[in-house]
Amino acid sequence: MNEPFARLPQPPYYAVIFSSTRTGVEEGYGETADRMVELAGRQPGFLGVESVRGADGFGITVSYWESEEAIRDWRRHVEHEAARERGRAEWYRHFELRVARVERAYGWDREGGRQRGSGETAR
Amino acid sequence: MNEPFARLPQPPYYAVIFSSTRTGVEEGYGETADRMVELAGRQPGFLGVESVRGADGFGITVSYWESEEAIRDWRRHVEHEAARERGRAEWYRHFELRVARVERAYGWDREGGRQRGSGETAR
Repeated sequence: MNEPFARLPQPPYYAVIFSSTRTGVEEGYGETADRMVELAGRQPGFLGVESVRGADGFGITVSYWESEEAIRDWRRHVEHEAARERGRAEWYRHFELRVARVERAYGWDREGGRQRGSGETAR
Repeated sequence: MNEPFARLPQPPYYAVIFSSTRTGVEEGYGETADRMVELAGRQPGFLGVESVRGADGFGITVSYWESEEAIRDWRRHVEHEAARERGRAEWYRHFELRVARVERAYGWDREGGRQRGSGETAR
């Protein structure tokens, strides 16, 4: 398995939480999703992304950004706008999008124990 | 498919974004996860939860809360503390936890179009 975790700086930073169910339409979806990850990764202020889709078709993708301005600029990217339009026309049945400011975070790893944290009491 | 989406009020509210990879240990995991959802659902200030795990074992669960106090109180729940301890001892290989304040949100549905939003220009 490739590393599925985003490597993020200390908070604060921003998260875009996108949860969705899909239609049965597969055409164009996979390559567009890959292309969006590639493009987002080149955007100023992009920090990382974590994404998973379950066997039942429900998925959650969380992308992380340095600032609200970075999110807005990505939102205005022409290819991203076109992809969102096609998403509504073909690929998604329902989605919910939430923009949030990450205030604290910590991680834990079986090998290394607590890895980093901020403002959170690990137990 | 049961409705996988949380039905949330207008922002602001809080999100706990928990991403994880699992060990191969299954014993006790499913029933504990179900029990935690049940218990969390009875906590004051709990708003909802969305959760998915992919075929590769990576999962994202986002729980939503009215306030940071509600998150803290849930964190201190004795059964939840015990479950977290067992999670580190047996079930998780790695996890990342981020606490964020949701500032705006909108949803879209194939049947109904844009459903609700706040502070976000839907396209």
